[in-house]
Amino acid sequence: MHNRHPTAQVVYYEEHLFLVDCGEGTQMQMTRYKIKRNRIKYIFISHLHGDHCFGLPGLLTSYGLNGRIEDLWIFSPPLLKEIIELQLKAAETVLPYALHFVTIEKEGILVDEKKITVSCFAVNHRVTCWGFLFKEKHKPFKLIPEKLQQYAIPSSFYQRLKMGEDYINKEGKHIKNEWVTQSVDTQQSYAFCGDTAYNETVAEKCKAASLLYHEATYLDDQKEKAASRTHSTAREAATIAAKAGVDKLLIGHFSSRYETLDDFLTEAQSVFSNTDLAIEGATYIIHK
Amino acid sequence: MHNRHPTAQVVYYEEHLFLVDCGEGTQMQMTRYKIKRNRIKYIFISHLHGDHCFGLPGLLTSYGLNGRIEDLWIFSPPLLKEIIELQLKAAETVLPYALHFVTIEKEGILVDEKKITVSCFAVNHRVTCWGFLFKEKHKPFKLIPEKLQQYAIPSSFYQRLKMGEDYINKEGKHIKNEWVTQSVDTQQSYAFCGDTAYNETVAEKCKAASLLYHEATYLDDQKEKAASRTHSTAREAATIAAKAGVDKLLIGHFSSRYETLDDFLTEAQSVFSNTDLAIEGATYIIHK
Repeated sequence: MHNRHPTAQVVYYEEHLFLVDCGEGTQMQMTRYKIKRNRIKYIFISHLHGDHCFGLPGLLTSYGLNGRIEDLWIFSPPLLKEIIELQLKAAETVLPYALHFVTIEKEGILVDEKKITVSCFAVNHRVTCWGFLFKEKHKPFKLIPEKLQQYAIPSSFYQRLKMGEDYINKEGKHIKNEWVTQSVDTQQSYAFCGDTAYNETVAEKCKAASLLYHEATYLDDQKEKAASRTHSTAREAATIAAKAGVDKLLIGHFSSRYETLDDFLTEAQSVFSNTDLAIEGATYIIHK
Repeated sequence: MHNRHPTAQVVYYEEHLFLVDCGEGTQMQMTRYKIKRNRIKYIFISHLHGDHCFGLPGLLTSYGLNGRIEDLWIFSPPLLKEIIELQLKAAETVLPYALHFVTIEKEGILVDEKKITVSCFAVNHRVTCWGFLFKEKHKPFKLIPEKLQQYAIPSSFYQRLKMGEDYINKEGKHIKNEWVTQSVDTQQSYAFCGDTAYNETVAEKCKAASLLYHEATYLDDQKEKAASRTHSTAREAATIAAKAGVDKLLIGHFSSRYETLDDFLTEAQSVFSNTDLAIEGATYIIHK
């Protein structure tokens, strides 16, 4: 509606591309926006309403037609595996790559890569629905050369210092990590809260995120409708952002009843000023 | 690819709208082209490859969200019912309208409305795949007033004359229908041949159609590839049109390997001149 497609987001982190949700039309939109979709290894589906997952069978089939051979993991609530397998069976299609379905059953870490983890947390929707937290791991500390020399730390221990360990020298003296290193930028994080009613426990899960995406299906004059449909208003999304103390808020999932979106931005910014609208095709850089 | 969406066609006949196939993105395209989708009562799915049916769950769900209450019929090969029901179950969605799945098992009439029938015929694809024939019923004959008077036919019999009956008067005299009526335009028909390899029996099924849509996935220099993938070339589609003696041919389902389509038209027209390309969003009027 109003040229807005259902939910799908690609999260970039160094060489990784993660896909979060996959509404109908996602594969076409990926082509339009020149997303290197073959680099996606992990797909996270928040819940099984069509506007968040009906683009998945098309994407999976296209991967097959285009000769993908790399494994693919899909994290989702139950039944998605059964649906996709039935669709493949009906089409008499055998994918040329391995597809791993992981059913999300509880909060916790889903993906643990070298420099980043992806975990999930419960949000509050009509059906089982998960939020996702992308969190950069602790960055290595920077060594201070003159201090290393002063405390006579052997170079064989430098790597462990970078990872935050203290050093105990031959005389048994405890050299604290902070005496010989300096911290670098703190970790970046991105929290995705798809469909959810206003829920303050969500703010706890997204605490201090660099960027929070929170749905804002309605404006606040439709607060009761939002609650009854387990969705949020722009004001509520901004309130969660403020409570979580995030750096920046991105709102999206606007109801098709709204043709223009200016009022969403104004309403959210009145509560949390560093808010932006999630606009189709746009890229948002995460800073810390 | 190249801004071409997968297959979906809306067939208009008087107050009827029929949907044939429903690839991913069909509901968005219907919005773009201002199709009155609520008037669709019958949906025909040729086969269960994703580019012909992955838009269906989204359309069915949107009908529900928009409060549709009118019954809807879907004709398709087996398993579609199971897929859609599983998707609705996963979304915990109960549609507010009755959805009737009709599994196509043999050639014959699927829909018999007052002025039009829709029947199916087998085509030749990797999986079970059906073509559809929309055929206007016999149009009522036109009465010739002076002849009605001459033969003293009571007005109570006019309706039966229009439908082609003869009249026998009180004296037992047989008044032939053709003496008192004149025929009007002959019936219009539209044959849809979705994915199929070149198959001359298809020409028999589409004989003398007003308009034939036939897939043309490749150009003729890829004839072997077309055959091995149970698709057709533009030349083959045109050959079927010529053998069937149709009035006009529409070709479509062009492979995404082709960015431009001029060569398809040139190739087909060299065999069957009254050919047109099936272009997204275009409307084709059927004449007889």
